[in-house]
Amino acid sequence: MALARPTDSYPDQSWTGWGDPALLPVLSEGMRQLLRAGLGVDGASAGAPPSLDSLALAAGRLGDADLTALAGIAGDPHVLTDAEARIRHLRGKSTPDLLRLRAGDTSDAPDAVVLPGSHDEVLEVLRLCAERQIAVVPFGGGTSVVGGLEPASSGFAGVIALDVRRLNALVEIDEQSLVAELEPGLRGPQAEALLGEHGYTIGHFPQSFEYATLGGFAAARSSGQSSAGYGRFDDLVVGLRVATPAGSLELGRAPKSAAGPDLRHLVLGSEGAFGVITSLRVRIRPVPAVRVYEGWRLPSFTAGAAAIRRLLQDGPTPTVLRLSDEAETALNLARPDEVGSGGEDGGCLAIVGYEGSAATVESTRAGATEILAGAGGTVVPDAGEHWARERFRGPYLRDALLGEGALVETLETVAFWSALDGLYARVTGALRESLTAQGTPPVVLCHISHVYPTGASLYFTVACAQLPDPLAQWQRAKAAASDAILAAGGSITHHHGVGRDHVRWYEQEIGPIGVAALRAVKGALDPAGIMNPGVLLGADPSS
Amino acid sequence: MALARPTDSYPDQSWTGWGDPALLPVLSEGMRQLLRAGLGVDGASAGAPPSLDSLALAAGRLGDADLTALAGIAGDPHVLTDAEARIRHLRGKSTPDLLRLRAGDTSDAPDAVVLPGSHDEVLEVLRLCAERQIAVVPFGGGTSVVGGLEPASSGFAGVIALDVRRLNALVEIDEQSLVAELEPGLRGPQAEALLGEHGYTIGHFPQSFEYATLGGFAAARSSGQSSAGYGRFDDLVVGLRVATPAGSLELGRAPKSAAGPDLRHLVLGSEGAFGVITSLRVRIRPVPAVRVYEGWRLPSFTAGAAAIRRLLQDGPTPTVLRLSDEAETALNLARPDEVGSGGEDGGCLAIVGYEGSAATVESTRAGATEILAGAGGTVVPDAGEHWARERFRGPYLRDALLGEGALVETLETVAFWSALDGLYARVTGALRESLTAQGTPPVVLCHISHVYPTGASLYFTVACAQLPDPLAQWQRAKAAASDAILAAGGSITHHHGVGRDHVRWYEQEIGPIGVAALRAVKGALDPAGIMNPGVLLGADPSS
Repeated sequence: MALARPTDSYPDQSWTGWGDPALLPVLSEGMRQLLRAGLGVDGASAGAPPSLDSLALAAGRLGDADLTALAGIAGDPHVLTDAEARIRHLRGKSTPDLLRLRAGDTSDAPDAVVLPGSHDEVLEVLRLCAERQIAVVPFGGGTSVVGGLEPASSGFAGVIALDVRRLNALVEIDEQSLVAELEPGLRGPQAEALLGEHGYTIGHFPQSFEYATLGGFAAARSSGQSSAGYGRFDDLVVGLRVATPAGSLELGRAPKSAAGPDLRHLVLGSEGAFGVITSLRVRIRPVPAVRVYEGWRLPSFTAGAAAIRRLLQDGPTPTVLRLSDEAETALNLARPDEVGSGGEDGGCLAIVGYEGSAATVESTRAGATEILAGAGGTVVPDAGEHWARERFRGPYLRDALLGEGALVETLETVAFWSALDGLYARVTGALRESLTAQGTPPVVLCHISHVYPTGASLYFTVACAQLPDPLAQWQRAKAAASDAILAAGGSITHHHGVGRDHVRWYEQEIGPIGVAALRAVKGALDPAGIMNPGVLLGADPSS
Repeated sequence: MALARPTDSYPDQSWTGWGDPALLPVLSEGMRQLLRAGLGVDGASAGAPPSLDSLALAAGRLGDADLTALAGIAGDPHVLTDAEARIRHLRGKSTPDLLRLRAGDTSDAPDAVVLPGSHDEVLEVLRLCAERQIAVVPFGGGTSVVGGLEPASSGFAGVIALDVRRLNALVEIDEQSLVAELEPGLRGPQAEALLGEHGYTIGHFPQSFEYATLGGFAAARSSGQSSAGYGRFDDLVVGLRVATPAGSLELGRAPKSAAGPDLRHLVLGSEGAFGVITSLRVRIRPVPAVRVYEGWRLPSFTAGAAAIRRLLQDGPTPTVLRLSDEAETALNLARPDEVGSGGEDGGCLAIVGYEGSAATVESTRAGATEILAGAGGTVVPDAGEHWARERFRGPYLRDALLGEGALVETLETVAFWSALDGLYARVTGALRESLTAQGTPPVVLCHISHVYPTGASLYFTVACAQLPDPLAQWQRAKAAASDAILAAGGSITHHHGVGRDHVRWYEQEIGPIGVAALRAVKGALDPAGIMNPGVLLGADPSS
């Protein structure tokens, strides 16, 4: 049953980079000079991405019997084996993903793309694949930046991408409980549009919002830019239906319960390794009457972080709270179209947003203004509105810079407040050291992107010149940063997820007993081990 | 390392009932008349509880070799086998528990009580018990009301109660992150006193506060009377150390993370079935400068619930929010010392509490007052302060009524707001029907005890005359209520936990795949199945 479905057919993403190809920015001459002078990027090392036709792609490994059986479940038009479909379901959108594609590496392409139309069809596909030892990669918006769509496929008869785009209904709105049931294939703007017609919002706006899906938000524990006000996505999910190879799981009879462990938190963050989320119930709120976004310049990262901590611990807490460090503020990345033009005033830029009723916004803003001004902050005209307008544009700049011969990537972590200074210093240091040692001294930028009463996340952006093997170059730097994160007491990821890129550090983070618990769950729900193999848990040493 | 430990030696509880025997109320003549006239309770059916000496207790099953080995780990004075120690660790404090004790049934008494002094000692005890197939019941305050301390001991060489009272340090206060590390054996008032010396509070005040321990709060997903303001205990825990038979688990490197499933939520609510919590890191807050508790009379349960829902969904949200139904208001259970004297004004009594800075309390109170008055509410003088003074006294009245020949017990559930009316009607109906059919028409009272933006809990109190077999009488009524809870879409427990009493309904609630996932975790962490056997998961059909 569906209350409504989107009427738009959302455009596919650029298959060589992020989002809508028409929005790729053209770099200014000032920017090119900055890249040349600052990082030694000469624009010569990078070529244009290959064309779709020029990419070599191995023949699919699934035979007619498998494809016919899959078509028998999902319907003939919903089993795709053409090159474009397979390449569009190849890996995610991290810089390594893009570099490998530019290098012509299509080795992780699925053998077929299957688009089931219901929970029961998903169940049947999983049962069939378990029987025939076919690996299954659940696929939402394809926006993973941690190798979440890159299965360890050896030992399998083949790999399918299970694309949930046809599961895209707004199923129900419970206006009394302020809970909506939605299907996982809805992309962020589609879900907001369907709910908006009834006056509601989820309030979840991560940078991937325009292309990522609700299923992906849940499976990867996404966190949105308004998380200070609305909460993370895992806070917003109150119920889940999951199709696993062993059967169905229905979770969430109540907002909270003492009925044993909260199994919702076992599915949230499971990244498709246990099953496929086929329906979500999420908390909704009335669309806010007022939205105000302000830019504040704080004297330093330390002073700004202290002010933000007070806003979380003592209140009042704004809806959006972000704080760039001195380097990021100087580069003015909050304005991707004006990069390099904002440093002259010094200090650190904070984005502070308020959403809600006029009265709530007024009182929260008054209280927060007092704390921010008391910390030496001053308002930066237009910076808040500009941020709100451009908030989803960051990845396009990354793609343009890659094309120019720069290596640009982001990584993130989270820790308790008392560990944050050390974490910031160690990760920045590790990235600088690794890339400088490789002969490509980087720019390292950072901002606090998500905040809690007890801690905060740090989001790093790194840029340097590409070496001839930029993939290996980045992997060395990333490993150094990941080691530094664990050594400084941070978590290996605040909102990007584990995927395959973080498995090594994730296993250290939760320890052997934590890994054993998760392997046991996987063994029970996915005995054949077909679900997104290699993601989250890596290879099982016992198998 | 310990920053501080309690200096008081907290008195043991009454071994035949709740808390401090000196606080057992003497029922007024009015109350007795009410029991006689209203419920047919004649006071003749109940006798005094047996004396400790008169209780028959089977000899402990552990031999000298086991006891010597345990003493080798925990120290000789920390392995107890005397009758009083064993009986004081016999079951919990539910009405069935008390009825069985009154009937002389000591069959679930542990064979020995072990009091380890460190995480490593707990680990060693668990390893030893796994080797020798000795069941282990983790024991905090002994306040379970769902059979959480009643192991399925057949097939084991014996049973020990692992009492965590010696793990009672305040380990550390992280004032920047507002996080404190505490050990599980601290009882509620001890933890508050140690933190209070530094100006902090956890803000967790369940009815069991005076006797329950932090470890128990976490293991059973406790919820306190101030949960609207401070959150449930599972919201307050940011980190856990757990000793399992398979080894140690350290969880919580950050407030929130996308590093896989949140394993904290696998331990929270696990009720000792996976291991023993040996340390907790919890969110703390400054002790509030102002605490105000008000009583409000709302025209009806429906009108009151709607007003409370508005306070959660639109704000401002008070710290304490409770609402009695018409029957409970009439009986005036908010004033246990004046039961039966408060019904003349009709309507429903709400308790509304505000805690925080003077400014926060003032603005929240102003906003809430507008909503409550707008819903037809009027302030009931003194009722709030009275509630705050008497908030932990409820169980004493239950004990006094049991002694008088009445059967009194409570049960609770939780659901989304849209299911709450139906849940209320069905559970009330099921209790009335079952007990009336047994010839003992009951009084059924209810209040909303914990509230969320998306739903609320219902807490029922039932009283009727005891039949000759009051245990069987209650078990029939409880089963009918539990069936009604599931049929109406509620969760089998909001804050009491699963224990053994709720296993049958819990398994329906999470379904066979949920059960399989938890059994798999138990198999990995507790391969010998010694941890609190039968609790949470019941018997494993495959073993």
